[in-house]
Amino acid sequence: MKPYADYTRSERCAEYTALQEQYEAWKTKQLSLNMARGKPSRAQLDMVSGILTVLQSPEDCFDGALDVRNYGELTGIPSAKRLFAELLGVMPSQILVGGSASLNLMYDLIAKAWTHGLLHSPRPWSQEPVVRFLCPAPGYDRHFRVSQSFGMELIPISMTPDGPDMDAVEAAVRDPAVKGIWCVPKYSNPQGIVYSDAVVDRLAALRPAAPDFALMWDNAYCLHEVYGEFVPFRDMLTLCREAGNADMVYEFASTSKITFPGAGVAVMAASEANLKYLSGLLGAQTISYDKVNQLRHVRFLQDKAHVLELMQRHAAILRPKFEAVLAALRGIAPLNIASWTEPKGGYFVSCDAMPGTAKRTLALCAEAGVTMTPAGATYPGGNDPADSNIRIAPSFPPVEELEQAMQIFCLALRMAALEKLGI
Amino acid sequence: MKPYADYTRSERCAEYTALQEQYEAWKTKQLSLNMARGKPSRAQLDMVSGILTVLQSPEDCFDGALDVRNYGELTGIPSAKRLFAELLGVMPSQILVGGSASLNLMYDLIAKAWTHGLLHSPRPWSQEPVVRFLCPAPGYDRHFRVSQSFGMELIPISMTPDGPDMDAVEAAVRDPAVKGIWCVPKYSNPQGIVYSDAVVDRLAALRPAAPDFALMWDNAYCLHEVYGEFVPFRDMLTLCREAGNADMVYEFASTSKITFPGAGVAVMAASEANLKYLSGLLGAQTISYDKVNQLRHVRFLQDKAHVLELMQRHAAILRPKFEAVLAALRGIAPLNIASWTEPKGGYFVSCDAMPGTAKRTLALCAEAGVTMTPAGATYPGGNDPADSNIRIAPSFPPVEELEQAMQIFCLALRMAALEKLGI
Repeated sequence: MKPYADYTRSERCAEYTALQEQYEAWKTKQLSLNMARGKPSRAQLDMVSGILTVLQSPEDCFDGALDVRNYGELTGIPSAKRLFAELLGVMPSQILVGGSASLNLMYDLIAKAWTHGLLHSPRPWSQEPVVRFLCPAPGYDRHFRVSQSFGMELIPISMTPDGPDMDAVEAAVRDPAVKGIWCVPKYSNPQGIVYSDAVVDRLAALRPAAPDFALMWDNAYCLHEVYGEFVPFRDMLTLCREAGNADMVYEFASTSKITFPGAGVAVMAASEANLKYLSGLLGAQTISYDKVNQLRHVRFLQDKAHVLELMQRHAAILRPKFEAVLAALRGIAPLNIASWTEPKGGYFVSCDAMPGTAKRTLALCAEAGVTMTPAGATYPGGNDPADSNIRIAPSFPPVEELEQAMQIFCLALRMAALEKLGI
Repeated sequence: MKPYADYTRSERCAEYTALQEQYEAWKTKQLSLNMARGKPSRAQLDMVSGILTVLQSPEDCFDGALDVRNYGELTGIPSAKRLFAELLGVMPSQILVGGSASLNLMYDLIAKAWTHGLLHSPRPWSQEPVVRFLCPAPGYDRHFRVSQSFGMELIPISMTPDGPDMDAVEAAVRDPAVKGIWCVPKYSNPQGIVYSDAVVDRLAALRPAAPDFALMWDNAYCLHEVYGEFVPFRDMLTLCREAGNADMVYEFASTSKITFPGAGVAVMAASEANLKYLSGLLGAQTISYDKVNQLRHVRFLQDKAHVLELMQRHAAILRPKFEAVLAALRGIAPLNIASWTEPKGGYFVSCDAMPGTAKRTLALCAEAGVTMTPAGATYPGGNDPADSNIRIAPSFPPVEELEQAMQIFCLALRMAALEKLGI
């Protein structure tokens, strides 16, 4: 094996013909394999079945004197606030426990900024001539879609191995129309990058022109190591407060990849002033979130030590899947047609195909029955200017299926690269 | 006993002194009694404990081939759609099963009208110079608060024993700024009024000037008889469609007062065109609602026959409480200082005190340890122009407490009336 770039035209043609034969053979198998979304696998879900029956009787449903089955406690039950405060390293008074999806909490925050404004907004964002939002890319497509659904202008920010390009961020926030930034600080989606201390410090110390700039701190994978022991992370609420930005940061997390993705518990951590302001608005929206499910989670997860132990068991299921993806990619490394990340945690491997070949690669995958996150999805507006980045989600399929899917993926990468080089 | 209006001044003074003595005696007991909100009682919650353990194993968590524990199925699981379609008399394709609170679904609909517009909106409501909303009053304070939180102008519409004053409604909707109306068609909050067929027909056949007029059809108590067998209700989606208004109506319901108020399942029923449009917007907000809880409800509630049987058991707990309220009120009927409704279902008794005495009555109650829904709460903006309407919520306290609370309430009604008449 040598780099495709060093192949002669006739070598490329011969290679392509050979690959095409393998590809056609895969197609006849009519597979249906999915590496599109970061969904836990059945084995992971089965592992937490205990949560289904952790509350059995009326007496089980009391959190101290509070009957969690009835209306009330808009911001969450006390024991759930304590648990998530411990997990995130913040104070219980900085926690809002709400609903089953952190994406929904993020959307609701942006929606409230739009309709009512945030704590320091001069006016609702809907009344601004233009709202811009910083989108470190590659990033999480659903973050970008929230901003896009409100008609914001999405500003791409390059990702570096240490996190977002902070020179670009600091320059961008001088524009008062720039109202926020999407961040996944630990095991970023899709690259699995952990923001460096220097990046985190610079983010906390930002001096945005917009008084209501929102640092959307989506700590989705804060406990989600795949390799090795739990890696502590710093409390962004404290860092922002110390930098004079107490009300700038909104941190999000959930148990979607700890218990059940469809039926977990989501939290927002923010300054007490922010929570007071937002609770006022939330009071018009709902009476209370599902507190029975909050208590289920408290009783099942217990405390940080138990959660970390559970996360190690998730990791044991996930590790062979990451290995299968990486082994396949390493197998084609000598061809020099793709680069990829080797994250220590999170849910994704990010692959950069030869520029101009991502869409073609995924079209070939689709034709052979392998569904991936669409090319471009990791960029604002679904537009990857280099047509290169591909998100691989190894968590859901069984290892054997993943190995097949990766064989097809690598074939597709190679065929697309050869087509690009000329055959 | 004779009407207070027929008392001489000295009779009123003597009566007031006697009542004051009883009132002071109650105060020394330092009671803490609550008739403020429509919360089910502990006995009702205990009765449905089976729902806590109806799903026990991984195998229990499949709805057909669908694993409800994982991401997906934005609009709800098929079996839940079928169950709620049966309960509401609509088609499963007209059902969105979402979250644990119908109030949240209503808020989200209005919020989306605000940020994006509804299906037939010429523009988002936030871009309209003024948005007006019709508020049949007395009505549900949380409905009015949703509209108010978006800065809408609330237009009060009188309630008649048959439902909203339809002459007033038909006149009001000629204004294109009038974008909707809040309705609780069966056992209205707080009066327990069931809209007559004539009112329902006229609502379905409205010809609003606004193309995106929203008939907010909150069928919160559609299965909630307190006296007698289930009373069938008409399918407003069909009636609206037949009247050429297929996309005008949004129906809401929940299991908040069937299973757990904090942890039930909420649904919206609407035309397929509306659901298609709204799902598109919802897709930016969330991946899926809590489908495990949806399946819990399907397995526990099973079908309409089982639900109606359960509702009869709820009624058996609620009936003595309604009786206690009504018995106390009937006891002071000869004084002619208040009128009230005697609903056949729902969660409230509505009492009209002598005009100008509601606030004073509730202040006296509060002083003696009885908490009620604040006076005025049943009117838009919290402003009852007659200072007369009081909502009584008998469901939560045990009967003995309720009897005490009603004694204090009747004392307060009498004292406030005597003060008004002059002592």
